[in-house]
Amino acid sequence: MPARILLQLDTDPQASTFDAVVAVDAGADVLLRHGGVTVDTVVPLVHGAMFTRGGADLASTAIFVGGSDVAAAEGVFAKIKKTFFGPVRVGVLLDPSGANTTAAAAVVAAARHLSLDRPSAGLAAVVLGGTGPVGQRVARLLAGLGVAVTLVSRSLERAGAVCERVRGEVPGATLRPVEARSASAEEPELAAALARAELVVACGAAGITLLDERGRAAATGARVLVDLNAVPPAGIAGIGAGDKARDQGGQVVYGALGVGGTKMKIHKEAIRRLFAANDTLLDAEQLLAIGMDLERAKGA
Amino acid sequence: MPARILLQLDTDPQASTFDAVVAVDAGADVLLRHGGVTVDTVVPLVHGAMFTRGGADLASTAIFVGGSDVAAAEGVFAKIKKTFFGPVRVGVLLDPSGANTTAAAAVVAAARHLSLDRPSAGLAAVVLGGTGPVGQRVARLLAGLGVAVTLVSRSLERAGAVCERVRGEVPGATLRPVEARSASAEEPELAAALARAELVVACGAAGITLLDERGRAAATGARVLVDLNAVPPAGIAGIGAGDKARDQGGQVVYGALGVGGTKMKIHKEAIRRLFAANDTLLDAEQLLAIGMDLERAKGA
Amino acid sequence: MPARILLQLDTDPQASTFDAVVAVDAGADVLLRHGGVTVDTVVPLVHGAMFTRGGADLASTAIFVGGSDVAAAEGVFAKIKKTFFGPVRVGVLLDPSGANTTAAAAVVAAARHLSLDRPSAGLAAVVLGGTGPVGQRVARLLAGLGVAVTLVSRSLERAGAVCERVRGEVPGATLRPVEARSASAEEPELAAALARAELVVACGAAGITLLDERGRAAATGARVLVDLNAVPPAGIAGIGAGDKARDQGGQVVYGALGVGGTKMKIHKEAIRRLFAANDTLLDAEQLLAIGMDLERAKGA
Repeated sequence: MPARILLQLDTDPQASTFDAVVAVDAGADVLLRHGGVTVDTVVPLVHGAMFTRGGADLASTAIFVGGSDVAAAEGVFAKIKKTFFGPVRVGVLLDPSGANTTAAAAVVAAARHLSLDRPSAGLAAVVLGGTGPVGQRVARLLAGLGVAVTLVSRSLERAGAVCERVRGEVPGATLRPVEARSASAEEPELAAALARAELVVACGAAGITLLDERGRAAATGARVLVDLNAVPPAGIAGIGAGDKARDQGGQVVYGALGVGGTKMKIHKEAIRRLFAANDTLLDAEQLLAIGMDLERAKGA
Repeated sequence: MPARILLQLDTDPQASTFDAVVAVDAGADVLLRHGGVTVDTVVPLVHGAMFTRGGADLASTAIFVGGSDVAAAEGVFAKIKKTFFGPVRVGVLLDPSGANTTAAAAVVAAARHLSLDRPSAGLAAVVLGGTGPVGQRVARLLAGLGVAVTLVSRSLERAGAVCERVRGEVPGATLRPVEARSASAEEPELAAALARAELVVACGAAGITLLDERGRAAATGARVLVDLNAVPPAGIAGIGAGDKARDQGGQVVYGALGVGGTKMKIHKEAIRRLFAANDTLLDAEQLLAIGMDLERAKGA
Repeated sequence: MPARILLQLDTDPQASTFDAVVAVDAGADVLLRHGGVTVDTVVPLVHGAMFTRGGADLASTAIFVGGSDVAAAEGVFAKIKKTFFGPVRVGVLLDPSGANTTAAAAVVAAARHLSLDRPSAGLAAVVLGGTGPVGQRVARLLAGLGVAVTLVSRSLERAGAVCERVRGEVPGATLRPVEARSASAEEPELAAALARAELVVACGAAGITLLDERGRAAATGARVLVDLNAVPPAGIAGIGAGDKARDQGGQVVYGALGVGGTKMKIHKEAIRRLFAANDTLLDAEQLLAIGMDLERAKGA
C-alpha cells in the first residue's frame, strides 16, 4: 500500500496546525498543506490528487478541507466534488473551524441520554447561537434526526434564513426561528421553547453568555444541556467547560472540553475512513454517523 | 543514509500536488514545498540544501523545479545551477508543467517503432503545436537525435523563433518553421512536410484540433502519430486519448494516456536518480536517456 | 510515543530550508512549515500545537522560531510564550538567522582555551560588529559569564543602545560601547581594549573586514580570536574560514567554518531536547549550556 497522503486545503492564509497534528495522529503519512485555497485555485490541486495514482492506490490519497471561514470552505468542498468524475476521485472530509466534528460530537453526547435516533420520540431542542458555524450544523443534524428545533439568534432575520436553508437540506425538517434580545429568556416565545425542550445546546461565540441563571431557569423540561463555549464566562450559566455528563439537579450537562474528547475521536476516525475507500465524502451527517458508530463500539 | 529530502520549488503560488505525490511515490522521504519561487528568492532556498549536509550525505538532498510557467521555471533552474560551486551541489530535476517528462515519453513511444537513435536513418518528423512547452522540447529532443524537424505553429514568427533557439541549443540541428492556418493542411508546404514525415507529434493546447480528417490524410508517409492532447476533441482526428501503439491502417498511434504511463515511469525514475549522486542535472535530454534506459530494461 | 512534530514558524515569506533539513536530521518526524509568520498571526498556529495532544504526548510537539529578521522572530517568540498557560505548552527553540546557535558555538570554541565559565578569572573580550544579530548575542553570553565586554560598532549610539539592553537582560554585566571608524584600531580606546582583551570575536556582515593587519596587531593580549565571517575578505586579517583552533604565533584562531561544526551539533541537540519535555524554552543562554554539555560529553 502506498503512503497515505492527505491534502490539507485550508481557506485561511496559514493552514491550520490543529488539523495537521490531528491528521498525523490519525495515521496520515504525508501532508500536502495549502493555505489560501479558494474556489478559483482548488482545481489543479485536486487534479494532482486524482491523476497521480490509479486503481486501489487511489484510496491512499485523500483531501481535508478546513479554514475559519466556513462558507468559503463549503464552496471549496462543492467545487472539489464537481471536479471529480466517474471513479477518478478521492475521499474528502469537510471540517472548517472544526464545526462539523464539534456539532457531531455535541449530538453524540446528547444521544447518550435522549432517544435522538428515534423520530417517533417526538423530541424538541433549543439551539442557542444557532446561526453560527456550529449552531447551523447542530440544528441540521437534530432536524435530520426528526427533532423539532427552535433556532435562536439575536437576529430573527438570520435565524429565519438558517431555518429556511436547513429545510432545503433536510426534507421534512421542523425548525422555528426565535429571536433572543437578552440571556434571560424574557421573550415569551423563547421561554416557552425552553420549557418544552428536552435538549438545549449553546453554540455561541467564545465568552458570550447565551443563557444566564434566570434564562436557564426557564429550561424546565431540559434533560440535557450542552455548552460548547470553552472560554469563561460560560455560554449557559452553571456549566463548566470540563463538565462531562455531570448531573445538576436532575439535568445532565456537558461543557466544551467534556465534548472535546468525542470530537477528537470522530475527527481521527474520519481521517482513517478517508483512506479506506476513494469515494468517501464526509460532511456533518457522515461525521455524526461515525460518532454513533464509535459509541456503539464503546458500548459493545 | 539520511532521509531523502526533496525541495519542491514551484513558480506557481500553490506548489503542484501532482509533483508532490509522484515524488512521494518515487521514494522521497520528506518534501520541503515552496510555491511562488522566483529567480530573486531561490538562492537562500538552495543554500539551505547545499550547506546542511556534507560528504556522501549531500546526495540525499535534491531539488525539483516545477510550475505552469515554463520560462519562469527555466530561469529558476539556471539560477540554481549558478548558485552551486565545486562539489557543494545537489541533484536537480526540471519538469515545469510536466513538459520535459511528457516530451521525453512521446519520443520514447515513437522510438519503439522508428530508428530514432540512428541519425543515419535520415528520418523526418512534423511537430504540431511546436511553440508550446511540450512542442519545443519534442522538437529539441528529435533534432538532437538527428531527425529533420518541421515545426508547425499558427504563427510563422513564433515557429521561426523556436527553431532558431533550438538550433542554438542543438548544434547541427535541422529545423524548419511552417505556418498552419487551419487543421486541414491546405498549405502546400505543410502538406509536403506531412507527406514526407515518418513521425507526427501533436503538442497543442487541450481540446484544440491540430489535424482534422483531411489534414491527417495528408500524412501519407507517417508510420507513427502521437497526440498529446487528453481533452476531446482530439488533437489529431481519429486518435483516442487511451490509444497505445494501436494500429490504424498501417499507422501506429498513441494518445495522451497511452504515453502517460511512460511519462510517469520516467518521472519516478528521475526522482530516484536524483538521490543516487549529488551532481545530477536532469533536463529534457537526460529524461529521454532515462526513458530509453527503461525501455532497454523492459526489453531485457 | 506519537510522531515528533515540529512547527517551523519563520518570519520570512519562504520558510528556511536550512532549518528544515537540520530539523529532519535531528529526528523531527513531521515538519509543519509556515513562512510569513507575525506576532498577529502566530496565536492560532500555537493553539494547534497546544490543544491537539495531551499529557506526556504533548512533549512530541515542539516549535522552532526562525527567520532573517531577528527582531521580528524575537517578537514571535515572546508572543508564543504568552500564549501558553499552565502545563498547556510545548518546547520552543529560537534561532533566527542561526544567530543564537552561532553565538553559542563561538563562545563554546573560546571556552576550550579560556576559563570563560569562571567569573573570578576576570577575563576581558572585544566583540566586533557587536550590534548585529550574532554580535549582540555573543556580548550577552560573555557578559552572562562574567566577562568584561567591549562592544564595538561603527556607531557609538547603536553600540551604547545594545550595551544598555544587555545590562537589562544580564544583571551585573560589565559592558562598554566603543566606536570604530576604520579596521585599523586607530582609536586609542579601541586599541586599549584590544590590548587588554584575552578574546576577540568578529561578528560583522559577510565580506566586511573589521580588523585589518594593523588592527589585529593591536590585539597584543589576545589568546583567542574568532572570526564568524565566511565570505572573503576575512573579518579579522589572517584568519581563514576553515581555521579551527589553529595556532598563529601563540594565538588560537577560529574561522566561520571552524565554528560551524559546533554550531550544527548545538542546533541538532537543541531540536532533540525540545522533544524531551513540553516546557523547554531554548534561547541563546540555553544553547550555550547545551554546547558546554556537548563539550563535556566529548571530553568524557
